[in-house]
Amino acid sequence: MKAHATREMLLDEGLRLLSVKGLTGVTLGDLARASGLSKSGLFAHFTSKAQLQLDLFGKMVVVAQANVVQPAHEEPEGLPRLRSLIAHWLGWSGRAGLPGGCPIAAALFELDDLEGEIRDRAVELEGQWRAMLLGLVLRSVELGHLARDTDEAQFVWELCGIYLTHHASARFLRDPAADARARTAVDALINRYAPPPARGERISEDQSA
Amino acid sequence: MKAHATREMLLDEGLRLLSVKGLTGVTLGDLARASGLSKSGLFAHFTSKAQLQLDLFGKMVVVAQANVVQPAHEEPEGLPRLRSLIAHWLGWSGRAGLPGGCPIAAALFELDDLEGEIRDRAVELEGQWRAMLLGLVLRSVELGHLARDTDEAQFVWELCGIYLTHHASARFLRDPAADARARTAVDALINRYAPPPARGERISEDQSA
Repeated sequence: MKAHATREMLLDEGLRLLSVKGLTGVTLGDLARASGLSKSGLFAHFTSKAQLQLDLFGKMVVVAQANVVQPAHEEPEGLPRLRSLIAHWLGWSGRAGLPGGCPIAAALFELDDLEGEIRDRAVELEGQWRAMLLGLVLRSVELGHLARDTDEAQFVWELCGIYLTHHASARFLRDPAADARARTAVDALINRYAPPPARGERISEDQSA
Repeated sequence: MKAHATREMLLDEGLRLLSVKGLTGVTLGDLARASGLSKSGLFAHFTSKAQLQLDLFGKMVVVAQANVVQPAHEEPEGLPRLRSLIAHWLGWSGRAGLPGGCPIAAALFELDDLEGEIRDRAVELEGQWRAMLLGLVLRSVELGHLARDTDEAQFVWELCGIYLTHHASARFLRDPAADARARTAVDALINRYAPPPARGERISEDQSA
């Protein structure tokens, strides 16, 4: 039990390090310094830097599930759940106690030229995340909350762009308008794929005239 | 002259390194190894790692101007020039011979938690780039190519999101559909801010009916 608690403490500390310094900045030595344990003590929990990085990805998934996915599932299926997920996703890492932003957003640009198991795992996680988003969009179409001719993959692709530019805008440029800009962009994306009766206020006006 | 040529060769080599490894991966030692010069020989050209990084940013601006901004200025002002700039911007780093993607895109996520002159310079460059984009959008509005009520800053904000998600999609996920998805997203963004007569094909159909 004590070993388990130590390991969880190390993963929490490691996730904060990962968030601030990126994957190249997280070594067993860094984690030893940050946690106050000896480097040899760390080997009882992580056999290598690569193992540590993979375990930190695993921990991050647990944290993201609890902070983003789970709250969204309290909302009704379809568009309400999709909107809730987006609202919890934008800026999630800060609210989850990660001081340096989303580790996967950083990995998308840090790992693009590397090969190996860390990159493969990050690609897999990003793929799973996008598949989850796609499922929410598909369900919104099924329920008639989005138009039947919605290009669901395009929707997810553009949504990921809003997430990335919000991250850069809020964290790198420190733009106080980042949240409002993201809301406008999300609303425009949803409106573009709104079911015909609601699509575009101008059309409603034309039809009622 | 010889010193100048050596310096330019070093900047070219350094920019390739920066593109692949990010800012933390570019040291005077790395550049010495990549260029075959001695580390002490490098000191004749760059006094510190920070100076090297700032000089590499400067070189990148020159390369981006030549590969993205200059070709766009051969197109007529307004929307044709804006569209041309976007087309030259998406994927520009690969076409400019940078094997590892756009150094600024990576810096947006690598430098978000750091302080100092490198971050400040990256923020300044990103600000200049966005100001240039904003100028093109404003001119498109002035010329009536985009609607008078266009939110120009929102347009630029979302355009930067398309750039970032295209970068992640093409380089990290290696998605062959990345270019087509980006074109669809750009067309939708431009259409959203199209001047009233052309805004939304459905409206034209309604009006002609």
